[in-house]
Amino acid sequence: MTHTLKALAVGTVSAIGALLVAGSALAADPLMDRARDLFKPLPASIPVVKDNAVTREKIDLGKMLFFEPRLSASGIFSCNSCHNLGLGGVDGLETSVGHGWQKGPRNSPTVLNAVLNVAQFWDGRAEDLKAQAKGPIQAGVEMNSTPDRVMAVLTSIPTYKTKFADAFPNEKNPVSFDNVAKAIEAFEATLTTPAAPFDQFLEGKADALNDQQKAGLALFMDKGCSACHNGVNIGGQDYFPFGVIEKPGADILPPGDKGRFAVTKTADDEYVFRSPTLRNVALTAPYFHSGKVWDLRQAVAVMGSSQLGAKLNETEIDQITAFLHSLTGQQPRVEYPILPASLPTTPQPMLR
Amino acid sequence: MTHTLKALAVGTVSAIGALLVAGSALAADPLMDRARDLFKPLPASIPVVKDNAVTREKIDLGKMLFFEPRLSASGIFSCNSCHNLGLGGVDGLETSVGHGWQKGPRNSPTVLNAVLNVAQFWDGRAEDLKAQAKGPIQAGVEMNSTPDRVMAVLTSIPTYKTKFADAFPNEKNPVSFDNVAKAIEAFEATLTTPAAPFDQFLEGKADALNDQQKAGLALFMDKGCSACHNGVNIGGQDYFPFGVIEKPGADILPPGDKGRFAVTKTADDEYVFRSPTLRNVALTAPYFHSGKVWDLRQAVAVMGSSQLGAKLNETEIDQITAFLHSLTGQQPRVEYPILPASLPTTPQPMLR
Repeated sequence: MTHTLKALAVGTVSAIGALLVAGSALAADPLMDRARDLFKPLPASIPVVKDNAVTREKIDLGKMLFFEPRLSASGIFSCNSCHNLGLGGVDGLETSVGHGWQKGPRNSPTVLNAVLNVAQFWDGRAEDLKAQAKGPIQAGVEMNSTPDRVMAVLTSIPTYKTKFADAFPNEKNPVSFDNVAKAIEAFEATLTTPAAPFDQFLEGKADALNDQQKAGLALFMDKGCSACHNGVNIGGQDYFPFGVIEKPGADILPPGDKGRFAVTKTADDEYVFRSPTLRNVALTAPYFHSGKVWDLRQAVAVMGSSQLGAKLNETEIDQITAFLHSLTGQQPRVEYPILPASLPTTPQPMLR
Repeated sequence: MTHTLKALAVGTVSAIGALLVAGSALAADPLMDRARDLFKPLPASIPVVKDNAVTREKIDLGKMLFFEPRLSASGIFSCNSCHNLGLGGVDGLETSVGHGWQKGPRNSPTVLNAVLNVAQFWDGRAEDLKAQAKGPIQAGVEMNSTPDRVMAVLTSIPTYKTKFADAFPNEKNPVSFDNVAKAIEAFEATLTTPAAPFDQFLEGKADALNDQQKAGLALFMDKGCSACHNGVNIGGQDYFPFGVIEKPGADILPPGDKGRFAVTKTADDEYVFRSPTLRNVALTAPYFHSGKVWDLRQAVAVMGSSQLGAKLNETEIDQITAFLHSLTGQQPRVEYPILPASLPTTPQPMLR
């Protein structure tokens, strides 16, 4: 009898709860409406990639290559070294460390959702991920290899020959540097992070954000952050000067790195960078192309003053930071790949 | 009607197949009998670990710590850097590279099946894996961290505090350097590689080895390799001088590294090393503590002359090498762990 009563009571509460939820979803929600005009939720499906059909075989091969340290001359660095899938797709360093313990010039951008960016690298010098993938492999301060060396490594290992043939059927020479890049791009296209609280909010779940996060979202739009960080990737779509209103200090914006100017040789592009995606930004400290800011709250304050001419107060900074935490999505679940063994004919690691 | 006939036919063939298998397992097989006296198949279960009950919670935490680059001062090296689970549990380098691009003194031994070794490191200076795990974290040429720094990192991250409390319930201070080592040991205990062709042979499947491999197994026992490489781990159980009969050249056995002598200070232990497990040896080039030999065939030849006084001919080397390939077992399937983000209070990477 007691049980029945309790069940009835629970049932009633649930029914009321359901009505409330339905009510809040149907009721006018001006914040949600405004947000939906500026942002889009991340689809759970794998995005389409230009000129590179994403097949299961390419993804499998690309995953092996993404974790393959033998793409580097030393045999030490893989893509995952600087774009660690366990660490939000970055390495947590100011700037990455590569061959011979050299420090790279810029902070490693996250590989997560990178497929949705308009172009790759901080200065957008690579059109897409397949162009990007070739960069670090050859960069002297990163993996320090060459296309010839990469081919010598891969063609020495029979399993790789089979995997390339499977991933690129009907091609005469499936094992090629271009196909290395295409396979990596196909795997990276799977590295999206859907279902962040903010995505759920955009999809109509009003309580997916708490009050502080909602206040932060409102500020994010009111203050103008969303002018550069919008769309499905909440950034990553266009180029903007760092220091529109007020140049940050030389520690944060080193004068020697003129950003996109190096790509376009246009004076207007001095200190211009691609706005980064803010998805998973709570996981990807330190911040900015210089990697000089370790605290997300400080990064928010710097953006306020340098980009918007707004001196944000502590409450506003807390609110925007809380909103940014709502951009952390479901991280990729990846089975660590078993790589085929080197043979005596495989080029040996080169540490010098 | 056709279907029924086909089903019957398939049934008959299967039945005959089953009889043949049973027949071959029951028939006298002197090679199998000899092998069973010397070796044991690897169980599929997780081995029991001394003073460290292997729980699901410890394994989960240990996996995170195994892949955790923030255990190193630089934030670059994790256990997996030198004991790469995709590469047979090693790094494929002559000797490992650590902090500041320093080269370590010895070749990285595989973590796979290491739980079954009598002791850890080439000289057996660590009694077990929990003692071993503390070494590289603190070694200046490897991860270059300190227990204090590791504690500062882990206690700054709330998720780790929860995970340690889950893994070490009822402990007053669950986050401790000892428990870091215990969790890593628990995870490493899962890194066994059962069901190698040789295991299947020992379990009665006569055709799990081909004729060349069977000839190699016979030689492995006849020539005396199995004197040092026997038991469930096919090695790893005792200490032996490198160069029992004939010292190999200084390139392979550098005079400066006197092996176990450094541990016991006993003259008898000069150039004495723990015999390595030969499981997965086809995956773990280069070979020996010096990492100077890249070809498994050459390693077999060197062992023949230096340890057994036997100049093996090419056919014998091929046969033993083929047998060694039958020791490659099922590699661990591991989902890459998502690590909790650093906070502004987390110690920053230290590259100097």
